[in-house]
Amino acid sequence: MELKGWRGCCRLAAVTIFKLKYFAMTPEKFSEINLINRIRDRFPLPGQDVIKGIGDDCAVFLMSGSKAGLITTDTLVDSVHFDLSWHPPEKLGRKAAAVNLSDIAAMGGIPSFALLSLALPESVEGKWLDEFFKGFHEMLQAHGVSLVGGDTVKSPEGIILSVTVVGEAEQNSVIYRSSAREDDLVWVGGPLGEAAAGLLLCRRKIPEDNNGRFQQLVNAHLDPEPQVNLGRLLSSTGQVHAMMDLSDGLATDLAHLCQASNVAAEIDASQLPISDAARDAADFLQVSPLDLALRGGEDYKLLFTASSDKSELLTRQIMKELNQEIYCIGKISPGQGVFLRTADQTIDISFQGYDHFA
Amino acid sequence: MELKGWRGCCRLAAVTIFKLKYFAMTPEKFSEINLINRIRDRFPLPGQDVIKGIGDDCAVFLMSGSKAGLITTDTLVDSVHFDLSWHPPEKLGRKAAAVNLSDIAAMGGIPSFALLSLALPESVEGKWLDEFFKGFHEMLQAHGVSLVGGDTVKSPEGIILSVTVVGEAEQNSVIYRSSAREDDLVWVGGPLGEAAAGLLLCRRKIPEDNNGRFQQLVNAHLDPEPQVNLGRLLSSTGQVHAMMDLSDGLATDLAHLCQASNVAAEIDASQLPISDAARDAADFLQVSPLDLALRGGEDYKLLFTASSDKSELLTRQIMKELNQEIYCIGKISPGQGVFLRTADQTIDISFQGYDHFA
Repeated sequence: MELKGWRGCCRLAAVTIFKLKYFAMTPEKFSEINLINRIRDRFPLPGQDVIKGIGDDCAVFLMSGSKAGLITTDTLVDSVHFDLSWHPPEKLGRKAAAVNLSDIAAMGGIPSFALLSLALPESVEGKWLDEFFKGFHEMLQAHGVSLVGGDTVKSPEGIILSVTVVGEAEQNSVIYRSSAREDDLVWVGGPLGEAAAGLLLCRRKIPEDNNGRFQQLVNAHLDPEPQVNLGRLLSSTGQVHAMMDLSDGLATDLAHLCQASNVAAEIDASQLPISDAARDAADFLQVSPLDLALRGGEDYKLLFTASSDKSELLTRQIMKELNQEIYCIGKISPGQGVFLRTADQTIDISFQGYDHFA
Repeated sequence: MELKGWRGCCRLAAVTIFKLKYFAMTPEKFSEINLINRIRDRFPLPGQDVIKGIGDDCAVFLMSGSKAGLITTDTLVDSVHFDLSWHPPEKLGRKAAAVNLSDIAAMGGIPSFALLSLALPESVEGKWLDEFFKGFHEMLQAHGVSLVGGDTVKSPEGIILSVTVVGEAEQNSVIYRSSAREDDLVWVGGPLGEAAAGLLLCRRKIPEDNNGRFQQLVNAHLDPEPQVNLGRLLSSTGQVHAMMDLSDGLATDLAHLCQASNVAAEIDASQLPISDAARDAADFLQVSPLDLALRGGEDYKLLFTASSDKSELLTRQIMKELNQEIYCIGKISPGQGVFLRTADQTIDISFQGYDHFA
């Protein structure tokens, strides 16, 4: 039972043991610690067939001799997680599948099948549903995943999408967020902050021509691509020690990983992969590109740590097999916290993000 | 791939292939056929590791050599599936777990672990959550089930509870709804219509003293007991051919079972198990007790068919091992439809319920 997240600082533990991505948006009485203490008080350790319960991107359970099952669930709520005024149904369908596939990817697993619970208000149109299902199916199909069941209910207001995805992996190749080691290098699987920039652009309802200019960013928000193949390949190399997906922003997610692994991390600001488009948008939006990269949620890129001694081999192998770049952004060290090193200072950004300290 | 439900009468097929319990409450544009045609068009047959996809109480998948995994998900929406003005949080927690455990029971399986997705509005109080978790945990614990993960999100309005439960069974002892045979007897695992009577009593806000008088019925609505042990025992006898749980009322659920099995059923009105309390409440509420038993949803009793030749043995075994009565209410015959035989007529009640024909 890896439940390290339950020890140490309660606030950090709280975030780790249950996925509470969006709870920061609720008032104080629903602080993470408050809610998680409630859950922790009520639910004891899981049974023998559970390898990993609450506290990682997926729960992990025994399947056959060497196989582990992976399971994850995510709920997307209208006007909390998506805005129908700018989110086309087909892309929302793709995203509802993608955010769950990303959790399977984060364990190094292979997704197998999905369940979809749809709560729909009376105002939803058939055409909307057609397009939503088209996107949802496309994303599942691209990863060889079948829809095997679900539930369809009436919602008094707003669409609520709950997706569950089951996957599998060899038991000894599942990668947890709690296994980072001192002197590991810290990597991310793609550029950071693009989805956050895209969300800001959508919120500000930028004109069409700007939309064209920033299409890559808007698309990163509307239609993220889960890094399933990267997760599998990373797992197969045997060099990756800890992994999770980036959904709440690097500063928060890396703090989760460090907390679970009982280590600290130091990030080099100059190494953060921020695309020209994201810098361009940050300028246009008058926000800091570093802030987008550190605080921006919903990147759905993999965040992982690996031994430093074969890092060139790792980048070459990923490039060769997936034609994809990965980015080394810092390293793991003893201690606690996530630190950002810039040209003139090193500051603690754990669970916060850059602008709180600017 | 048992996908018989996809053939035959589209309307019936529609209801069978995806759980659409509450969709009758939505307007015509969301008719079951409409929505299911959309889903059917988009999602092809599942992959090799899926033994049974959309169309039964659970999806069934390959686990190890002889083991099958079972998975089900159910969403409960505030003011659609429950009313907080009369549903105490502890009992709602128990029910949110129970309705999913009942799906595992319906396959003859053993529930293993659960995931909980909670969408909560800002107005929810900590005390309410404490009591909800208490009930949810109690119900899981009573069946040896661990909570292994979930998701907690903000809801702009109303509580939405999505629960996923995973279970297991020997592959060759999973009982599907599609395997009823001609000349089987039709059984139910307990009295019918109590939850429906309880719901009506809650809706009419009957005074406290009547609440005491009808406590058994109100409790059947607020706090149903999933028949997990009965399901396992029935499966172990080898005599049960088809099974499902009663969630939408006997007339509808038995029609699903018949449709999936390509048979008809004849129910003997005089054999329906209707408790004195339910008859008393029906009189008080000025509704037909038969209507409660046939149309009343949320009974969460098992509905099953078994060979007629060992029926006494079956009832004796259930009584001996579980101290529980089961009720033979009719039999399976060739053809299509669900027929109700009363003293003076035999009428088709498929998917409708009694009062449409009264």
